[in-house]
Amino acid sequence: MSVHWIADRTKCFDSSGIRKVFDLGAKLKNPINLSIGQPDFDVPELVRQAAIDAIQDGKNGYALTQGMPVLRDKLQGRIDQEFRHGDRQVFVASGTSGALVLAMMALVNPGDEVIVFDPFFVMYNSLAAIVGGKVVYIDTYPDFRIDLDRVASAITPRTKMILFNSPANPTGAAAGPEEVEGIARLAEERNVVLVSDEIYRGFSYDGPFVSPAKYNPETLVIDGFSKSSGMPGWRVGFAHGPRAIIQEMVKLQQYTFVCAPHPFQWAAAAAMDIDMTPQFETYRRKRDMIVEGLANDYELVTPGGAFYAFPKVPWGTGTEFVTKAIEEHQLLIIPGNVFSRRDTHFRISYAAPDAVIERGIEALKKLAKR
Amino acid sequence: MSVHWIADRTKCFDSSGIRKVFDLGAKLKNPINLSIGQPDFDVPELVRQAAIDAIQDGKNGYALTQGMPVLRDKLQGRIDQEFRHGDRQVFVASGTSGALVLAMMALVNPGDEVIVFDPFFVMYNSLAAIVGGKVVYIDTYPDFRIDLDRVASAITPRTKMILFNSPANPTGAAAGPEEVEGIARLAEERNVVLVSDEIYRGFSYDGPFVSPAKYNPETLVIDGFSKSSGMPGWRVGFAHGPRAIIQEMVKLQQYTFVCAPHPFQWAAAAAMDIDMTPQFETYRRKRDMIVEGLANDYELVTPGGAFYAFPKVPWGTGTEFVTKAIEEHQLLIIPGNVFSRRDTHFRISYAAPDAVIERGIEALKKLAKR
Repeated sequence: MSVHWIADRTKCFDSSGIRKVFDLGAKLKNPINLSIGQPDFDVPELVRQAAIDAIQDGKNGYALTQGMPVLRDKLQGRIDQEFRHGDRQVFVASGTSGALVLAMMALVNPGDEVIVFDPFFVMYNSLAAIVGGKVVYIDTYPDFRIDLDRVASAITPRTKMILFNSPANPTGAAAGPEEVEGIARLAEERNVVLVSDEIYRGFSYDGPFVSPAKYNPETLVIDGFSKSSGMPGWRVGFAHGPRAIIQEMVKLQQYTFVCAPHPFQWAAAAAMDIDMTPQFETYRRKRDMIVEGLANDYELVTPGGAFYAFPKVPWGTGTEFVTKAIEEHQLLIIPGNVFSRRDTHFRISYAAPDAVIERGIEALKKLAKR
Repeated sequence: MSVHWIADRTKCFDSSGIRKVFDLGAKLKNPINLSIGQPDFDVPELVRQAAIDAIQDGKNGYALTQGMPVLRDKLQGRIDQEFRHGDRQVFVASGTSGALVLAMMALVNPGDEVIVFDPFFVMYNSLAAIVGGKVVYIDTYPDFRIDLDRVASAITPRTKMILFNSPANPTGAAAGPEEVEGIARLAEERNVVLVSDEIYRGFSYDGPFVSPAKYNPETLVIDGFSKSSGMPGWRVGFAHGPRAIIQEMVKLQQYTFVCAPHPFQWAAAAAMDIDMTPQFETYRRKRDMIVEGLANDYELVTPGGAFYAFPKVPWGTGTEFVTKAIEEHQLLIIPGNVFSRRDTHFRISYAAPDAVIERGIEALKKLAKR
């Protein structure tokens, strides 16, 4: 039988928590779905048209490994303007996740330590583990701020990487300028790679987004078009950082992802010219709906960005609370232990129509009063 | 500086040989390009239209990890009809390469041995190495046939996988029914995973394609639409095999590739209904052009499939011969050592217009007479 053939590294991955939610949700007829990690707006019309034009123009063969010049040069220009680093190079990846996979492969040796802030995006610990890295968690409860002293104490001679994500999934926390500068300078001082996942940078509600690359020119930034342009199914992301690292990631891409989808690279180039401010403003308003709606019944750190809120459960564990929410109110949310070693919170995604958010708030109010 | 951060596994990859050809080629004004590993026909009109419809219908969000039912169910139906295996399941991957990466991750533990036939597709040895596997090469020169006794002797208690590819890149060799049945039964007897890369199955010129899965129900098949439907830049492939393995590959996909591009899954479903026989017939004719054109001057095993020929160099090493071909005739071909531990042959891709093939044959005739 084939089961004994399966490699040990598959045990690094446990998707049972989130799968349980989706399995329960699949049985529901009219769920209140606040579990989705993607925007509820579609790709802008002009960007769809750019994809269609590329397809009709026959841009359907392999793309260059590092990305098509139409997109890569435009990204390089924007990045050079923002950072003015002599050694900062960009390449086009298959989504932000693709860039993250390649960063892990290019940088983490077996036994290297990778610092991950808890709560964390579900891929961080799994991907670090799959390349043989050892995850070192830094707990950021209850306010999801980064305590630089704790980071400094966590760094050892085996520390290779700090994984930083702001605005963050699942908390929505957006680091302030001092936090960003602090983590950037600490990584530089201690000679550790800082990987900054900036996929939600457009969704910054309470101040301008600041990248740690502003303070630390060796920061490796991963980013993409999935969230900001409503095209998660198009698999176009990018990474920029020190040329030597980017070159290795491109080499690894040649043997794994091959290239990001070719026509969508042309579309992403067009997306760079579209002002998405109205969409981001809408999401700020949805954020406010959630914060105000839950103010009296939940302990919630106001999220500064992304499209998530991460309230504390009013009773039970995260898993118990979410199970009840699904059973009694058909409300789909994600228990905190999917993103954390704790099971005390739950994730709301407000990337949903206002009416769904309103139904969700009503259900949550009833659940709190149980 | 960032260079010392780079992980050791990046040394598994050496793309310098092929890059040298492309770098030389990039300087040429009017090259005779017989180096390209993708069809020279575009995506059929109906398939392009299906992609456009999917984009306009808003099928731009994340696809299901295992693939959209529109494609996955259709593939499952076709596979069930072909093999009638109770335990054979399919999922949609990001290209055949994506399926291969996931197969390696799901199956190969560090120290496991992976049998690869030399000459080999460039990814095989690199990907086996990146997951910590040990590549065991079986030389198939001069006729590129599989000697079952040699395979049987190469199997040890550490052998996890045999990587089989027919029709093959770079040789174009198509295994005969006895070879296919032999390798299938040997893998079963010796309890080794047989991975069958069937990306070129449509391009079978001298007899019907036979999969080893016909004889060994635990064969893991990887396949895709890139070559057969002219859509390598759309990144849609698939894998089918024992359910337990496929489930692990899907779980790994969730944390790496996420999903194959969503709109192109709808297009691939449409592609399944398009008869590509005329394109395959055209390529058979191109194959005949190459075989006849080189008959008097080159030692060439007639390729039974794919769109490659792999002649022996008439003088020097593969690298020396190819360097001269580029310098003197602007002829882009690939030296054999890119695909082999030997450097005695070169790869021609005849996925090119007839006029280019004719120019290539003329140049090769002159080169042989040097």
